[in-house]
Amino acid sequence: MSRLRIASTSAMLLFPLMAHAGDLRADATAVFKTVDSVNVSSIVKNNELTPAKAELGKKLFFEPRLSKSQVISCNSCHNLATGGVDAGPLSIGHGWAKGGRRAPTVLNAVFNIAQFWDGRAVDLKAQAKGPVQADVEMNNTPAAVEATLRSMPAYVAEFRAAFPNDANPVSFDNMANAIEAFEATLTTPNAKFDKFLKGDDSAMNEVEKKGLRLFMDKGCAGCHNGVNVGGNSYQPFGVAQKPGPEVISQTDKGRSKITGNAADDFVFRVAPLRNVALHAPYFHSGSAWTLEDAVAIMAKDQLGQTLSADETGAIVAFLGTLTGDQPKVQYPILPARTKDTPRPQ
Amino acid sequence: MSRLRIASTSAMLLFPLMAHAGDLRADATAVFKTVDSVNVSSIVKNNELTPAKAELGKKLFFEPRLSKSQVISCNSCHNLATGGVDAGPLSIGHGWAKGGRRAPTVLNAVFNIAQFWDGRAVDLKAQAKGPVQADVEMNNTPAAVEATLRSMPAYVAEFRAAFPNDANPVSFDNMANAIEAFEATLTTPNAKFDKFLKGDDSAMNEVEKKGLRLFMDKGCAGCHNGVNVGGNSYQPFGVAQKPGPEVISQTDKGRSKITGNAADDFVFRVAPLRNVALHAPYFHSGSAWTLEDAVAIMAKDQLGQTLSADETGAIVAFLGTLTGDQPKVQYPILPARTKDTPRPQ
Repeated sequence: MSRLRIASTSAMLLFPLMAHAGDLRADATAVFKTVDSVNVSSIVKNNELTPAKAELGKKLFFEPRLSKSQVISCNSCHNLATGGVDAGPLSIGHGWAKGGRRAPTVLNAVFNIAQFWDGRAVDLKAQAKGPVQADVEMNNTPAAVEATLRSMPAYVAEFRAAFPNDANPVSFDNMANAIEAFEATLTTPNAKFDKFLKGDDSAMNEVEKKGLRLFMDKGCAGCHNGVNVGGNSYQPFGVAQKPGPEVISQTDKGRSKITGNAADDFVFRVAPLRNVALHAPYFHSGSAWTLEDAVAIMAKDQLGQTLSADETGAIVAFLGTLTGDQPKVQYPILPARTKDTPRPQ
Repeated sequence: MSRLRIASTSAMLLFPLMAHAGDLRADATAVFKTVDSVNVSSIVKNNELTPAKAELGKKLFFEPRLSKSQVISCNSCHNLATGGVDAGPLSIGHGWAKGGRRAPTVLNAVFNIAQFWDGRAVDLKAQAKGPVQADVEMNNTPAAVEATLRSMPAYVAEFRAAFPNDANPVSFDNMANAIEAFEATLTTPNAKFDKFLKGDDSAMNEVEKKGLRLFMDKGCAGCHNGVNVGGNSYQPFGVAQKPGPEVISQTDKGRSKITGNAADDFVFRVAPLRNVALHAPYFHSGSAWTLEDAVAIMAKDQLGQTLSADETGAIVAFLGTLTGDQPKVQYPILPARTKDTPRPQ
């Protein structure tokens, strides 16, 4: 998307918000959706969501033996205990290598337009295959993963049950399908904001409501909108002014590497903001350690505005209302290795 | 304990077993205890076990921000998904450093005479402080841990609730106390073996019963006895013959480093065998990748015997009956960091 198109899209989104400034809920409902208003099954393509698949996917999500070292699982970097992501700013992978960008949260990731900061994976099942193979993450191979899973009879039985129509159920592809099915369960409904959207005036206090109004009127909601309050479009980091190296890498050009289009330099998928209060640091760089800092940087670099401390505080208070019910997950018990299970390396 | 005393203890234990060879359950009951026959509260000293403390301890057990990198938690190496321990053979810690010995399982660890392979920690609360500070593990300091915990109001509130009589509840000591309280819940009752001990003849099949008989008659139970089928004494690795470097390190002399007594060279705490089928590789070296290998090595090096394949198979089948109900743990949601929380390093 060109910058011109972005600017015009933002203008279109802003105009109706300002016209109806009197009715906060009506204005918000025009640009946001509650988590439970979206049927996850309608989003996930080519992968029927079943309880058996999700339960297997949960095991695989917590399965360190998907990694070459057998100590790194999906949950290592997308930790469900801490907002669906690790401590940051960059994830630590095989051999203590560090990744290039802040890990994105897995919570509500199913709602995103695509996966990774640059959108290079079309969906969660495509995403799941990346870190397993990336040398700075789990550093494994599809063949080794399949050998590992096939070596444990309990996994073979679970794959058969989850993929009853597959002649070859224990496959790298089905690992990814199962993980997607589990991750599709990791939505966080019942945030204060959702309750407010549904009609509960007392769900948000006055400061939070002021923050929501500012979030829309200042233009934040021009990009951070929809069910995931972001995650549904690509935008340049630096619409008003390109930030310096203290904020983002000057060499990581984001989506242009995927599209091959120089107009996409420094374009990234907009950060989804649900549960954002749970998982500092922020941005693809992980350079902002507080929401106050992140909001101030966004206002300056994206919107060309300087917010007052009160305004920033109100927007941060509003962002706190995006924290929903965290997934209740019983920690899985994984199959025991056998003599045929590949050893850690 | 000298080798002479060990030998005589083993002889005393073996004699009654062989005298009553006809009654398998009576013989077994003389040397083993069921998990649920032991009151954990009577074992844990100087730390009242309360639900509030255990719940806080669960959070801390899964808390990666106790480590300097903020990615390593207790559960990283003592993974409840895989028998209370990691993939081995040696744990991976800060900077991808490897530990010197196989991580011991946390399951039923409360029953052990002391903690670590060399017994250098008197109990679980003493143990918990070790890995947090070890440079090849979590590489943190008590001061940094306390600063981290105090920076998050939700933790402060939970420590106050768990330690209501402490003037200074958020402390490194209380971190360890809470972790001990959680770990004391990690027992695994209802193994087939326990059901058999309680009178259910059908809980073990004939091969498993033959294995139990052999386990006692061959002398394994001379050291692997009590509630945890081991873990309750120190014994030399190599009673009959000292194994070579393919089995154990020739420089890691075990308990003598703690006692300063050369008679304790190559003495280690006897491995507790509950859930042993879940957590290969075995020995403090992690050098045996199957129970068959481990049993054969133990028979040869500890008892000076060569078992037939049938005998080994039966003993391995018996060891499989030591797998109990794994702890049902709801994965915790941890407090969000604040601006005052130390950053990962």
